[in-house]
Amino acid sequence: MERQAIRIIGIDPGLRRMGWGVVDSVGTRLVYIASGAVSPSAKKDLADRLAALYEGLEIVLNTHNPLEAAVEETFVNKDPVSTLKLGQARGVAMLVPARLGLSVGEYAANQVKKTVVGVGHADKRQVQAMVKTLLPRAEISSADEADALAIAICHAHHRPMRQLREKAS
Amino acid sequence: MERQAIRIIGIDPGLRRMGWGVVDSVGTRLVYIASGAVSPSAKKDLADRLAALYEGLEIVLNTHNPLEAAVEETFVNKDPVSTLKLGQARGVAMLVPARLGLSVGEYAANQVKKTVVGVGHADKRQVQAMVKTLLPRAEISSADEADALAIAICHAHHRPMRQLREKAS
Repeated sequence: MERQAIRIIGIDPGLRRMGWGVVDSVGTRLVYIASGAVSPSAKKDLADRLAALYEGLEIVLNTHNPLEAAVEETFVNKDPVSTLKLGQARGVAMLVPARLGLSVGEYAANQVKKTVVGVGHADKRQVQAMVKTLLPRAEISSADEADALAIAICHAHHRPMRQLREKAS
Repeated sequence: MERQAIRIIGIDPGLRRMGWGVVDSVGTRLVYIASGAVSPSAKKDLADRLAALYEGLEIVLNTHNPLEAAVEETFVNKDPVSTLKLGQARGVAMLVPARLGLSVGEYAANQVKKTVVGVGHADKRQVQAMVKTLLPRAEISSADEADALAIAICHAHHRPMRQLREKAS
């Protein structure tokens, strides 16, 4: 059993708000480190908003130095224009940690909910309440932050099994 | 009337192949400079493929030093999974020139076809033939390259009007 802290960043991708949350996973314990959201001005062109998301996320990663990253597999909306926008933001969310050499895990939204709350169809309030219970020192000011922390918690839970699978394959 | 060369890069976004084409626009003349495609290994994780697209495109931009960029507005597929993938690649296509300080124009696929071929519903062969006519020195080895050059040609055609509109607003 490993006992050293593994620092994990969870990212909830979005073009208007990119939520992020950093936790340390120490054995079976979880420690809240920091969380927030990157929100580029909606007045900018799309390309400049993507650049602002990139640069904001890069600052977060360089400040907190996580070892691994986890990104939510975006809910595939029925509206293709929204799906395309979300895809563009998600591309940036995966790219920044990959370029800094981190492994990037992907988790479906209902896998995150199932891991954190116990049921795949949990609502936002339930996720937020459970994140507060698991990380009592967390200062959460938005749903995006709570979601990002939930993704980090989900990765902390699944990573030992994931590593075993990777070693076996 | 401006007479100095404006170097333009057109980008046809795709996760498997990102086509690019560079032209100089001198008054009403067009000069082919270079074209190609960035194709990351499909064996890599999504995050690493996006990072490879980013790095490949950055090399192209640093090699040819275009002043302006143009990216195709992705065809919104009926399949949301494909739309999401395309969105991720498109995010990278817009991000790289924006981070290097270039303005990034967006053109719908049928606007590109209408500008280059004369009709919005032109097929790939017609686009490729017209690109060859407009840029006789172009060495085109794939449809993605021809599409990327068509996007650059479209931007060269629309940019004077675009600039007038921007000044007026």
